Amino acid sequence: MGDTVGDELRRHKVDVITNVEITAIESSKCLRVSGTNGFEQSADLVLLATGVKAASQLAVQAGISTGQKGAIQVDQSMRTNIPDIYAAGDCVETWHRVLQQYKYLPLGTTSHKQGRVAGENAVGGNRKFAGCVGTQVVKVFDLAAARTGLREQEAKAAGFKPLTVETVAWDHKVYYPGAQEMRIRVTGDIVSGRLLGAQIAGHWRSEVAKRNDIFATALFHGMSVEDFNDLDLSYTPPLSSPWDPVQLAAQAWCRKASSR
Amino acid sequence: MGDTVGDELRRHKVDVITNVEITAIESSKCLRVSGTNGFEQSADLVLLATGVKAASQLAVQAGISTGQKGAIQVDQSMRTNIPDIYAAGDCVETWHRVLQQYKYLPLGTTSHKQGRVAGENAVGGNRKFAGCVGTQVVKVFDLAAARTGLREQEAKAAGFKPLTVETVAWDHKVYYPGAQEMRIRVTGDIVSGRLLGAQIAGHWRSEVAKRNDIFATALFHGMSVEDFNDLDLSYTPPLSSPWDPVQLAAQAWCRKASSR
Repeated sequence: MGDTVGDELRRHKVDVITNVEITAIESSKCLRVSGTNGFEQSADLVLLATGVKAASQLAVQAGISTGQKGAIQVDQSMRTNIPDIYAAGDCVETWHRVLQQYKYLPLGTTSHKQGRVAGENAVGGNRKFAGCVGTQVVKVFDLAAARTGLREQEAKAAGFKPLTVETVAWDHKVYYPGAQEMRIRVTGDIVSGRLLGAQIAGHWRSEVAKRNDIFATALFHGMSVEDFNDLDLSYTPPLSSPWDPVQLAAQAWCRKASSR
Repeated sequence: MGDTVGDELRRHKVDVITNVEITAIESSKCLRVSGTNGFEQSADLVLLATGVKAASQLAVQAGISTGQKGAIQVDQSMRTNIPDIYAAGDCVETWHRVLQQYKYLPLGTTSHKQGRVAGENAVGGNRKFAGCVGTQVVKVFDLAAARTGLREQEAKAAGFKPLTVETVAWDHKVYYPGAQEMRIRVTGDIVSGRLLGAQIAGHWRSEVAKRNDIFATALFHGMSVEDFNDLDLSYTPPLSSPWDPVQLAAQAWCRKASSR
């Protein structure tokens, strides 16, 4: 999937350089960036995306327990270990519904849900955060790349026996103009048949994000890949096919799983 | 919702005439169509869309039971009342998962699913048709209009106590160019809180069809409108908001339901 994103960047004249570790950024007239393998580049602006850590010093000082990347530990009611102190958002560990464990996954969607739970409980309510399933989407020029659930290696690390099958499918019937191909990767557990995750890369106008959400909703309910084909999804020739691309991908997974 | 579709047709110079019953179509040089309220129109082509009936004469002659609009009666294995004869597609009654009864709803998506079940069982398999939830979408010029589950009046007729709330929401964050509004109608049962159906009308590039499928997947699992807000859906500013429009619609429903 990374290749697809890289290709889209290069198609728009972005230089993509990998396998270089940046060792220095020096400021003279402009910024001079140097790295391993003899990398040298000048730049007007350098944007660093090196991950996120929770800024939880205030909580630590108050005696609140923290865990992964300094994130505050909470229960499903968004309670910390100190009575009457609730936490939510980018500073907390998030319950992952597929992994059935806490992870540090700071995202706006999750923060909104957690904030609602924390706020309601802080005023005497009794709401539970149902957990995330690892849903994300990014738009890169004309490409949308979305994921939900676990990728192959994450599923393996979590003790599942994953099988990942990739399918290329048209976003709608090719006899209707403007059809675009999308790549869909489905990961399922070969022991239980359970859906574990999906990734989609395609044109951002191909309903990639909300197709990903069909997988996300199925994951929320712990569906099997096989049962995913039973979903009654919208079809009209300009927008899909009688089996939606997400179901064609699920069927490809089932064929591969049963032929093993 | 019908008004929205009518407006889109008129915006593209289509005359929309309602409340006229066509009484005659006569052929001379062209076709002359006449109707009630003094309606007179000439046309090169007349397309009638007056509903569908099952062409099940062959089945009837073979002693197979039929029901609504002449459609063949089947069980969830797609078996007819005659051993070793299976039926699927536009000629059969379809199990409706929300209504928990058979309805005549001939659609391509359903036919494909039923055909797979009938075919597999005919060669000794043991697959069950999980039922439809009444999902449909149509593209009308730049508009997509989608529905799933029950509309207000259908829910009432089925014995539910429906409440329907309509929301207008942007398809993505307005600070990112090209945001379009969509209308979302959510129908839920005020006694149980259960989601019963949804309708969306919006720009066909606003992921209307697949947003409808998030509702369809939730309906498949019998989710409540409240729990619908727990779904972990894709967000990036060009494609959605931290609460997706479908969840904003569900929240509007919950507010209205709790204020009654």
